[in-house]
Order: sequence, then structure tokens, then C-alpha cells
Amino acid sequence: MAQFGDRLVQAVRRTNTPTLVGIDPRLANLPDPIRPSVSAPAAEQIAEAYLAFSKGIIDVVASLVPAVKPQSAFFEQIGPCGVRVLGDVVQYAQQKGLLVIMDAKRNDIGSTATAYAHAYLGERGSNPLASDCLTVSPYLGQDSIEPFLEAGQPHGNGIFVLVKTSNPGGGLFQDLVADGQSVYNHVANLVNDLAYTHREPNADHPYGPVGAVVGATYPEQLAELREKMPNTLFLVPGFGAQGGGAADVKGAFDEDGIGAIINSSRGIIFAHQRDEYKDRFGDDRWQEAVEAATLDMIEQLRAVI
Amino acid sequence: MAQFGDRLVQAVRRTNTPTLVGIDPRLANLPDPIRPSVSAPAAEQIAEAYLAFSKGIIDVVASLVPAVKPQSAFFEQIGPCGVRVLGDVVQYAQQKGLLVIMDAKRNDIGSTATAYAHAYLGERGSNPLASDCLTVSPYLGQDSIEPFLEAGQPHGNGIFVLVKTSNPGGGLFQDLVADGQSVYNHVANLVNDLAYTHREPNADHPYGPVGAVVGATYPEQLAELREKMPNTLFLVPGFGAQGGGAADVKGAFDEDGIGAIINSSRGIIFAHQRDEYKDRFGDDRWQEAVEAATLDMIEQLRAVI
Repeated sequence: MAQFGDRLVQAVRRTNTPTLVGIDPRLANLPDPIRPSVSAPAAEQIAEAYLAFSKGIIDVVASLVPAVKPQSAFFEQIGPCGVRVLGDVVQYAQQKGLLVIMDAKRNDIGSTATAYAHAYLGERGSNPLASDCLTVSPYLGQDSIEPFLEAGQPHGNGIFVLVKTSNPGGGLFQDLVADGQSVYNHVANLVNDLAYTHREPNADHPYGPVGAVVGATYPEQLAELREKMPNTLFLVPGFGAQGGGAADVKGAFDEDGIGAIINSSRGIIFAHQRDEYKDRFGDDRWQEAVEAATLDMIEQLRAVI
Repeated sequence: MAQFGDRLVQAVRRTNTPTLVGIDPRLANLPDPIRPSVSAPAAEQIAEAYLAFSKGIIDVVASLVPAVKPQSAFFEQIGPCGVRVLGDVVQYAQQKGLLVIMDAKRNDIGSTATAYAHAYLGERGSNPLASDCLTVSPYLGQDSIEPFLEAGQPHGNGIFVLVKTSNPGGGLFQDLVADGQSVYNHVANLVNDLAYTHREPNADHPYGPVGAVVGATYPEQLAELREKMPNTLFLVPGFGAQGGGAADVKGAFDEDGIGAIINSSRGIIFAHQRDEYKDRFGDDRWQEAVEAATLDMIEQLRAVI
């Protein structure tokens, strides 16, 4: 099995776009045809609505983009039945040919990290949650990150480690300067070392199975980190709803126009509520709104890469 | 509803011990009467075994200790059916009068953090995973921590934020020195500020609903942080299996002998495999081994507090 960095680069080349679609279901934003008809739906009803919504998104984007990123929090929010349908979403997306990047920001030490890794990075189908990639938080250090890599590598699965996040307060600890560089640069050093070590030396690109989450709200830092982390794929959130535009993410790509995937969640999946699309499509034709928003994002990104 | 810091202090006073029992089920360590009898059990069979094992632990410790700490990773490892029984474990423990500290080290930004908070810190019974407290990772900053507090406070629920962890590599980022103090001290400042702000000013103790996870493998830092964080309850892992002893955790307590809870997981729940207990009890009487190990830990802690 090729390593994850290679699998993702090939998927981006095949679809000719680095667009990543985030699956973040929220009850209040579901289109009418999907939303439970009762005013106070039970958790099971919400879970079934989330599943139908997620499958509807996947049906539209499977032929357009390389990967989807389910946000575990929104499924966990409704309890165990939400996690059950999250597993269904993972499996449905993989069946449709998409890579699944599970956004769960897991982190722990030693054998506990290994347990998370087996949950999300085991062999496809080993359990319903087994994805192709997992987001990981770095505060606990290298020995908390390596277990994810060790468990994922044999199955061609990888991780994206939080390096520089897109929230307004992300800098509080990440921007602290120690030994002449910021904390996020210290994290970046580790991430690129791991990516370098685990890359395939003979591949036609430099990327390994360890990537970095770098927010699109910091375009100058994107370019700085791109240079500093030549073996690290970037997952860039914050396109669209969080304020980043196509020009802001340009710096995430290398000279060959690869090396990053750009995520949009709300901007695509709730396109039926956006000014640009709601009159044209509205709730009833929400899947067409998803398609239009995805195609628009693909085009916007092509203009700058 | 009293705030979480107060609820935990009262529970510690009532049971007269700061002992926290970690529920970390692992298939290979289950006692014979609990372990599935087939050689390659299905996930559902493992989940049922984990539930029986967890309930068996809770039955023993409910009258002895103030709280239990289920480790979500081991339940997630077996997939959605593991999360289903994790919800059953939470509810069973609460019915038995225990506080439940969910060890899931969640973290994310803005509305995604709020989704996690609703999953784990909502009103009791609002969903099966709703606990009394949740462990939270701090890398994303203050605006990633506050949503947990906002969602939990109305229900008397709280959080423990990772400050200084017990793994060998925990210092890689946590010990970096910026502006004259370590990163973990920067995190400690934020945590104590939040604890101070949200405490009950008229309580007979200084503790708020935001605690800190501080590893027992660093006794000198425990004492240093105790002084620096007068409003912050400590959750101290690493007692027993990870190498910390009763003398090492002494510094976590204040002058009144409160202010910390000390966790043991493997040392208690797998006591039937420990040299000290296995001949006396063995697999068949594993619950008696759990009881003996819990009572021994309570006694060891009493000797130093």
C-alpha cells in the first residue's frame, strides 16, 4: 500500500483539484427535505438526517474532489447514535472512491494514542470508523504523535497535525517565541521531520504521510511554512466561511501546484443558504447548490494555483 | 446547580479520599470471567465485555471513591458499538452516585468546540455521553477552551485542561521557555484565570470548575504549580503503573489536604494481574482485587496528605 502522502497527491492529480469538502452537519442548517419534520426530534432522528445529508453530499462531490473531511464533533454531539452514522458516512465515502480525512483532533499518550489510532487509522473496514487520515493535536509531544503513524502506516493511512490554527485566539500559545522561533515553528519542525522520514524517497513528489493543519487566515505564515516544510502536505481550513479566499491560500502550494488541500465546510454543504445560491436552488435543490458551490471553489482555486 | 469544582471538592470530602479510578478496558487484560470465550471476538462481543467489566468496577468502587474516569480511546477503538457502551458506563456510574470525568482530551475551535461540549458536558441524561467533566487539550488557545466552560457551567459541569503531562516526551513543547516561563506555565496562567473567574466566591474552598491535568512523574512541578494555581483543581495521572507513588503526589494538595484528585487506572482495574494481588484473588475474584487495590491506594494517599 502506498503511503498516505502519495495516495493524497495522486487523488489530487486525478481530480485535478485540491478541494476538500468538510462534512459538518448542523441540525439548524439542514435543508428542508432532509430536516426531521418534528419540532424536537430524537437523537436517532437527527442521526438519520445527518446520514442522509452526508450521503447526499458525497453523491454530489465524489466525482469532483479527492477527499472529504467529516467533523466528528457534530456527530458526537448527538451521542452514540451519531457516532454510529459517522461510521456509515466513512464507509459510504470510501465506497464512492473518496479519501476520508477524519477531523477528530485526537491526542493522548502511549498506548492510549495507539487505541485512538486503531479506531481511526486501522485497515479499511477493520471497524466502521477506520478512515484514511486523522487530524491530531500536538501538545503532548512526539511520543504522542508517533503511535498514530505506526498504526496508520501499514495501511497507507496518515495524519494531519495541528500546527497553526485559524481561530482568532490560536496564537495565544502557538505564537509564543522560544529559542528564537514560535511554538508553531517548533511543532512544524517535528512534523516535517516525521514527514521526511516516512516519505517514499523514489516518489515523483516530496510528500510524506504526516501533514500539517495551517489556517488560511494567516497567508503570510502559509508561505513561510510552505518553504520550511518541504515534505509536509498542508490541510488548510478556513476557506470561505472563516474568511480566507483563494488568493490567501496560494502560498500553501509548491512550485508544481501541489502540496496542499483546501477545506470548505459550511460554504459548500450549506450552499443552499448562501446568497449566491439560495435564489437559484433553495432548499429543495440543495444538492445542486452543493454542486455549484463545489465547482465554483474548484474554479477559484484553479485561478491561483 | 453548584459549579463543578465545588461538586468535586464535596465528593472528595464525603468519601474522604481523592482517589480517582480510571476505566481503561483492554481486551488482553480482562479477567477470565469477563473475557469473550471465542478467540477472535466480534466488536459487539468486546463491547459487551467492556460494559460488564466497567459495571463490575463501578459496583466495587462506587462506595469508596468520589469519581471515575473512563478513557474514551479504548471504547472508540472498537468502533461505534464501543461508544454506545461508553454511554452506558457513564450513566451507570452516575446512577451509582459517582462523578464521571470523561477522559477524551477533546479540542477544537468555536462552534465545533461547542458541539463537543454539548456531547460531553450537557445536562445529565441529555445524551448518554453527558458526563460531569471532560479533559480538554489547550493548543488551540483560550477561545477553544471557553466554549466547553460555557456549555458545562449551567449544568454544574467542568473541565480539566492538559497543562503538564506525564509521558516521557511531554516536555518537547510544554517545557519550551517563552517570555521567561515555560509553555506549560503559560497554559497554567490561563487555566487558573478561568478557574478564578468561575469559582464561587463564597465557597469554603478556592476551587473553580476549570482544573489542570498535571503528571505525577514531575513531583517538583506539581508543587510549583500548586502554588501558582491556587484556584485550580489538579487531576494527577501516573500513579502506580506510570511510576508515580504517593510521596510524589503530595505536592498536588493544598494546606487543607484538598485541591487534587489522583488517578490510577491499570493499577486498580487490572489488579488481578498484579504480583501483590494475583495469588490472593486471581481472575475469578477480580472484583475483590479491584477493591483491595483501591483500599490500598486510599491508604497510601492518606499517609501523605
